[in-house]
Amino acid sequence: MPLDRKHLIGKEAMLLLLHNENQLPEELRKLGWKFCKGKVGSMDGQKVVAAVETAAKNQGIVKTGLYRETHALYHAIIEAVSGVTRGSNQIGTLLRTVGLQFSIVRGNPYQNKEEGEWIAVALYGTIGAPVKGLEHEAIGLGINHI
Amino acid sequence: MPLDRKHLIGKEAMLLLLHNENQLPEELRKLGWKFCKGKVGSMDGQKVVAAVETAAKNQGIVKTGLYRETHALYHAIIEAVSGVTRGSNQIGTLLRTVGLQFSIVRGNPYQNKEEGEWIAVALYGTIGAPVKGLEHEAIGLGINHI
Amino acid sequence: MPLDRKHLIGKEAMLLLLHNENQLPEELRKLGWKFCKGKVGSMDGQKVVAAVETAAKNQGIVKTGLYRETHALYHAIIEAVSGVTRGSNQIGTLLRTVGLQFSIVRGNPYQNKEEGEWIAVALYGTIGAPVKGLEHEAIGLGINHI
Amino acid sequence: MPLDRKHLIGKEAMLLLLHNENQLPEELRKLGWKFCKGKVGSMDGQKVVAAVETAAKNQGIVKTGLYRETHALYHAIIEAVSGVTRGSNQIGTLLRTVGLQFSIVRGNPYQNKEEGEWIAVALYGTIGAPVKGLEHEAIGLGINHI
Amino acid sequence: MPLDRKHLIGKEAMLLLLHNENQLPEELRKLGWKFCKGKVGSMDGQKVVAAVETAAKNQGIVKTGLYRETHALYHAIIEAVSGVTRGSNQIGTLLRTVGLQFSIVRGNPYQNKEEGEWIAVALYGTIGAPVKGLEHEAIGLGINHI
Amino acid sequence: MPLDRKHLIGKEAMLLLLHNENQLPEELRKLGWKFCKGKVGSMDGQKVVAAVETAAKNQGIVKTGLYRETHALYHAIIEAVSGVTRGSNQIGTLLRTVGLQFSIVRGNPYQNKEEGEWIAVALYGTIGAPVKGLEHEAIGLGINHI
Repeated sequence: MPLDRKHLIGKEAMLLLLHNENQLPEELRKLGWKFCKGKVGSMDGQKVVAAVETAAKNQGIVKTGLYRETHALYHAIIEAVSGVTRGSNQIGTLLRTVGLQFSIVRGNPYQNKEEGEWIAVALYGTIGAPVKGLEHEAIGLGINHI
Repeated sequence: MPLDRKHLIGKEAMLLLLHNENQLPEELRKLGWKFCKGKVGSMDGQKVVAAVETAAKNQGIVKTGLYRETHALYHAIIEAVSGVTRGSNQIGTLLRTVGLQFSIVRGNPYQNKEEGEWIAVALYGTIGAPVKGLEHEAIGLGINHI
Repeated sequence: MPLDRKHLIGKEAMLLLLHNENQLPEELRKLGWKFCKGKVGSMDGQKVVAAVETAAKNQGIVKTGLYRETHALYHAIIEAVSGVTRGSNQIGTLLRTVGLQFSIVRGNPYQNKEEGEWIAVALYGTIGAPVKGLEHEAIGLGINHI
Repeated sequence: MPLDRKHLIGKEAMLLLLHNENQLPEELRKLGWKFCKGKVGSMDGQKVVAAVETAAKNQGIVKTGLYRETHALYHAIIEAVSGVTRGSNQIGTLLRTVGLQFSIVRGNPYQNKEEGEWIAVALYGTIGAPVKGLEHEAIGLGINHI
Repeated sequence: MPLDRKHLIGKEAMLLLLHNENQLPEELRKLGWKFCKGKVGSMDGQKVVAAVETAAKNQGIVKTGLYRETHALYHAIIEAVSGVTRGSNQIGTLLRTVGLQFSIVRGNPYQNKEEGEWIAVALYGTIGAPVKGLEHEAIGLGINHI
Repeated sequence: MPLDRKHLIGKEAMLLLLHNENQLPEELRKLGWKFCKGKVGSMDGQKVVAAVETAAKNQGIVKTGLYRETHALYHAIIEAVSGVTRGSNQIGTLLRTVGLQFSIVRGNPYQNKEEGEWIAVALYGTIGAPVKGLEHEAIGLGINHI
């Protein structure tokens, strides 16, 4: 069974950033979907990964001691980073800096309940030279089953 | 000088897809920004590239005979594809199929007029197995000076 | 809690190939671990992916209609392929051919029961020119939560 | 002429790790095959490369001052690392840590004596978050003529 | 309209390095083509990028405050680096060091004047172990519209 | 011992293309260095690899039946292709076409005779849209011990 067009987890994650929203649509809240948001600016790729991971754990989106959940989250983050870096996953090592907002959403985007929970990590912000203004926008989205 | 927060070309390109809009905000239209939209579903990476290129040329977003513009567009497309494929730029060769909407926006997102025109290519849709329903969302954004 | 050193799913998957075994150790069978094996030779990357996916579905390692399981399997396959191709995920497009055995193992390799089930895809065989004998060995392993 | 099925250098290198063996089969020792083993745990990709290179030189698997041999070894190491990292060759920059055993085997795996010596580098261990237990297994194998 | 066979910007950039020349052919100087050269040796990828960027700005090849030009230059540099590293864009993180000369050329290589200005970044030197002599040559070329 | 500055195999391979030369410098011929040249235009990556491999075998640069030599050549070709494609190794799958000249040179570029023979594969030509004129130059160089 396909994706439910009203429960598009990637779209919801991205709109939280593009609209600067601080809550999910009511329907999704009723279904028990969770989310959190944050910001990170760095030339250091591992700081970007750590910022998203830490937020997800502190806000209760994933269970801290369960590797299964950390693993799902980690791969979603790396996929989102690959959108921002357009494939290289490298930031400081190529003399770039990023200023990003991130959102993490957890819920079931499918019509079939058995599909269980999925996690989406969205990134939106800028990437560029480590000089104010020498930058353009970048976007990334990673989605994984959890 | 930095990006103009009301002229975020990547955000506008993405919102055209996420909101299923068929026009740019009035302020951007007044500034002469151009855009077009389209759809493509394929297991064949080169068909995705061709669909976006053809739309951009047919809708007058880039000049057909000028390599300079084709070159700028091409790299923006490839960057957007790398977001959708999360780095590999491979679709059918890895047994995946995509169903994507695309938007292309042309304008100057910077406060400084000398920054001239830039082009954004946004992709939003699904990627997955070549079987209906075995898919999740994917997003890509490429931005280039033109 | 860490990996259980007697339940190393990647090691078990690889040994099924390297020892040409047709069953898992008794302890793992008692725990309900499942596995299957197969062969594929091709210059076509998608045939390699398809062969592993089809075997996993036909042998009941993953549920056919559940995208969640297909998704977990797919990423494990692609990771295994990246070991064989050493990063490029390209076979025929770079004029290479592979002759591979594969194994797929499903079980919980962690001491903590809450970690649930994981899937390992192992590949072992040869990669080289499309000429008999112009080839060397290659190995790949992908592991994912399922 | 093809690979000799009793002289599979990649398989031997991998079994040294998976069986925790400390010698090669007698037949291979008689043929003058050489090997060494070691361990490395790090978030720093260059430390992994250095650990394998240093062991190979200290144990006399490759000649220290000959670039030809260092070059063959280096590429075998990088190929093995790409299996462990599943293509990215990045460890710490993506907030991952590895705990690996490695083996290096040198000999001629082909029936034809003119094929001369080849080198195999095998890696087996875990990759994951820099937290004990948040990790899964990973494998890599690189093979080169020397 | 095609490339002008007497105005091949990539070839000119490469010959400045291979012939150790310190000027462009007279015809190109008359057309207003600009160039600069420099050297950089490092294990640190971002230092390579920075050395080329700084030279281009200090020598007036690109305008310092204009992101459009920095953006064009940056992507040309990264493309050249990918030739030197043969795809990984990684240097020190994989325990390699480079000793490179670089040249940057700006001009219009096309018969059609509307194609405007393009920029070529050429790299030539050595890559290898961080030990004198354990190295071989490497070349990279990136070209972009500016 | 370092590279011999008069025996730079990569530079010689590249100059054969950039100067449209049909022989190596006399000193290198006296040392027994071998080379060949050819052309290939295609959207198909495997045709590029095949054209270089076939020329090398037909011209006696590498021994046909010896995998050791084919293996050395193959990796040098793929490294050269990664310079031309700037990392992706993809041509037709991303809707690009190449028109390339290639040269292959075999000899010892080091002062130390024990370094033995090495092989360089150079590529020079254009890459771009499959439309005449919508293209720019591209260069690649791969070097391997043989």
